[in-house]
Amino acid sequence: MARWEPNASGRLTEAAMELFAERGYGKTTVEDIAARAGLTERTFFNYFTDKREVLFAGSEHFVKQVVDAVRAVPKSSAPLDTVIWAYESTNDFFEERRPFARKRSALIAAHPELQERELVKMMSLAAAMAEILKERGTSASAASLAAEAGLAVLRVGFEQWVKDTKDRSLVFHLRAARRQLEAVVDRAKKGARAG
Amino acid sequence: MARWEPNASGRLTEAAMELFAERGYGKTTVEDIAARAGLTERTFFNYFTDKREVLFAGSEHFVKQVVDAVRAVPKSSAPLDTVIWAYESTNDFFEERRPFARKRSALIAAHPELQERELVKMMSLAAAMAEILKERGTSASAASLAAEAGLAVLRVGFEQWVKDTKDRSLVFHLRAARRQLEAVVDRAKKGARAG
Repeated sequence: MARWEPNASGRLTEAAMELFAERGYGKTTVEDIAARAGLTERTFFNYFTDKREVLFAGSEHFVKQVVDAVRAVPKSSAPLDTVIWAYESTNDFFEERRPFARKRSALIAAHPELQERELVKMMSLAAAMAEILKERGTSASAASLAAEAGLAVLRVGFEQWVKDTKDRSLVFHLRAARRQLEAVVDRAKKGARAG
Repeated sequence: MARWEPNASGRLTEAAMELFAERGYGKTTVEDIAARAGLTERTFFNYFTDKREVLFAGSEHFVKQVVDAVRAVPKSSAPLDTVIWAYESTNDFFEERRPFARKRSALIAAHPELQERELVKMMSLAAAMAEILKERGTSASAASLAAEAGLAVLRVGFEQWVKDTKDRSLVFHLRAARRQLEAVVDRAKKGARAG
């Protein structure tokens, strides 16, 4: 039996992020991470399947929170509102971990294989959102469009939130991205009608 | 030197699609495909790196066509129009290969690892589109939103085109998906203002 270690998962995550910053992601091993956290490799593997999972374990929590939130939105809401409100509900979750989110984003941006994994996770989130919208009576194609347009808002809003030197909230940046999506679609609509 | 074989790539693709349908994708080997096409494995590997590539080789042609098309759109066009017009320019390319596109879509839908590859290819296409829009003077976040909203239109329009029992054109379905995106965004805008 592994000995119970207080906050092992948090200590391992912190150790991993330090080492990724010091040596680079590619040169950090699970052994290094466990040693830095003062824990064993076995304890590491109780929490994460591999070193990549240190960066993605939180996203399961995120997906669960978003899916629970979307089910709580009144069914009369517009599909895109439903999706964006669900993302807004994660504001406090992310606020608490902005420093981690910043380091994580920089790491992902620097490694194509991590980017790919992030994209696949994000697209499965959009697919899950589209399924929920369909269950709530939205047509399949409107559900996909709302889920994928909502994902575009999340991706842009999140990127702005990570980069924001003024530390404004995720909700602030999601709303800004949403207004920008509206402007992008409006401008095209006018162009198409004039053309 | 490999002997030159007339239309080897087309014969291999056709043989692969037949075998995927008969035996399933997982049970078909490169050896089987080459034998069915009356060619050698070596010839297969002159054209494709593995059996999966039979399904993705065309997408390079598609990306090239779309990127060329987007550069030809006047810079005064709205970013989302630019993206959708570039997709519309592939209408004839796809019209000629609708039977192949149908089989390919069914195969991809049935295999999560192929779906993942398709998603990654589509998201890199959106990233390439966003880059071109930025070069043309669109802000980074508007470029991402237009490219990703445009990708949602492509994905929904393409799916409807593949399924259409009336064989209407890809342009028809892209325009329908685009109007539906406008409706999804409009409905949310009204909801947000009323709420």
